[in-house]
Amino acid sequence: TLIGTSVMLLWLILPLTLTKVKAKCLLSGSWRSDTSCQMVVSTLNKDNRFSGFYQPGPAAGYPELLTSPLEGSQQDTELVPQPTFSFTVNWKLQDSETAWTSVFLGQCYVDPEGKETLHALWLLREAADSPAEDWKGTRVGTSTFTRIK
Amino acid sequence: TLIGTSVMLLWLILPLTLTKVKAKCLLSGSWRSDTSCQMVVSTLNKDNRFSGFYQPGPAAGYPELLTSPLEGSQQDTELVPQPTFSFTVNWKLQDSETAWTSVFLGQCYVDPEGKETLHALWLLREAADSPAEDWKGTRVGTSTFTRIK
Amino acid sequence: TLIGTSVMLLWLILPLTLTKVKAKCLLSGSWRSDTSCQMVVSTLNKDNRFSGFYQPGPAAGYPELLTSPLEGSQQDTELVPQPTFSFTVNWKLQDSETAWTSVFLGQCYVDPEGKETLHALWLLREAADSPAEDWKGTRVGTSTFTRIK
Amino acid sequence: TLIGTSVMLLWLILPLTLTKVKAKCLLSGSWRSDTSCQMVVSTLNKDNRFSGFYQPGPAAGYPELLTSPLEGSQQDTELVPQPTFSFTVNWKLQDSETAWTSVFLGQCYVDPEGKETLHALWLLREAADSPAEDWKGTRVGTSTFTRIK
Repeated sequence: TLIGTSVMLLWLILPLTLTKVKAKCLLSGSWRSDTSCQMVVSTLNKDNRFSGFYQPGPAAGYPELLTSPLEGSQQDTELVPQPTFSFTVNWKLQDSETAWTSVFLGQCYVDPEGKETLHALWLLREAADSPAEDWKGTRVGTSTFTRIK
Repeated sequence: TLIGTSVMLLWLILPLTLTKVKAKCLLSGSWRSDTSCQMVVSTLNKDNRFSGFYQPGPAAGYPELLTSPLEGSQQDTELVPQPTFSFTVNWKLQDSETAWTSVFLGQCYVDPEGKETLHALWLLREAADSPAEDWKGTRVGTSTFTRIK
Repeated sequence: TLIGTSVMLLWLILPLTLTKVKAKCLLSGSWRSDTSCQMVVSTLNKDNRFSGFYQPGPAAGYPELLTSPLEGSQQDTELVPQPTFSFTVNWKLQDSETAWTSVFLGQCYVDPEGKETLHALWLLREAADSPAEDWKGTRVGTSTFTRIK
Repeated sequence: TLIGTSVMLLWLILPLTLTKVKAKCLLSGSWRSDTSCQMVVSTLNKDNRFSGFYQPGPAAGYPELLTSPLEGSQQDTELVPQPTFSFTVNWKLQDSETAWTSVFLGQCYVDPEGKETLHALWLLREAADSPAEDWKGTRVGTSTFTRIK
């Protein structure tokens, strides 16, 4: 019958749909960096934009850096399997007037077992008082993130 | 009379208001970089966010880089006179499947004559096929921008 | 006897001497990077300078980069236990006229078990034809090296 | 006479020869950076290696950085007209135990009027106490140098 065929088709289609739900390399979720930082990223909106929070690790040597908001975007996982992404962290600092901002630029890779890894380079800028002191305000480094289950 | 006093007050307040309108170091407007790139930045929204366009210079040696959209934010000029800013350029490329993304992180400085200069460092990432090739995907450099009158 | 005492003293002194020979964080020896590159570093001269060879990994995605000479120096391990170092690689390229040069800047760390790890940031420059094309010539990244026993 | 003609020819050829002697883009000499630093570079040895001194500008905002020795090398100007170069500065610091090291990686360009300009990117590392604090130790920036006549 028509209903019977429909139900059969549903059983065939359903697993595919469920697989699709667990799309890889959406940044949404919780991540831990190789330097023990954590970040939590919101669900992406329709423009592939996200927000979230970045929490420095206890051993980072910067106790004045507090958990801080992040804003960013990524490539559409419908278009590319290993999307690039970027986000900005506007640091909240304890007892400090100075503004610190980080930008992260990276790409999400998926290995054959489905494990996601984020590779990123970042710049960290401390506001300077004058152009003459601008030269020393920017640090550079890399971070690697894995998903916290 | 009351009306007369109000008009007098208006004459006192008006110049202050006009001065305030020409706030320095809002990124809104048109800028030219030291490498002959141009960018046009929208009016800031209430969260100090902006969008705009970035246009590479003709001598940049990358004819495949087209005028591309940018998205970013800056510190509030009510709070700091020389705000930091960051923005992302998602490059549109002619005849290319590869994704290129730039992040800029900088600060706006005002000299005693009121001339604004943007000092920024940037990262430029080309999407890689695998983590093994990730190491070579990111370029770094600086840009200085002055306002186009 | 005097000879007997001397031999006994030798047995006491010898292990200390051998321990001193295995000084930590001298860059001399063979190292493997997290991206499967290898480098071999010569014995340091009296000015803490060294030379050696750098060999890119097979998966690096740059088959034209050949094993290439390196030159550098490090801090004196008599003065600091975790010395900083820097070295330059002048790349030999297969079938290429272009000059590529890398500089590495890093520090050697020793963990409580005596395992040495080199943390470095690097810049990689490809010679450009003109100042207008200079902006895109420099890549940036990090490398971590462990000693090959 | 033959001798007379030879002397006349000599007067024509000599200025050309002298001009050629002042080879362009040898780093030997004195240079000033866009951030008011100065450097003095020795005559190159037969391996195109040089030494010299680097002096930070008064406005650099780091009064503890003293005039410091540099060591480096460049491409042979017989082989390429616009050679790449690299050098290391081991900073001498006033009243500080910490080690600071800079590496510069750049290229010398000559414009049609014969004016030489050095474009360089640099990394500046401050020694860290542990791998956990390594991430924040490296700054990045650019410098442009012109020759002091």
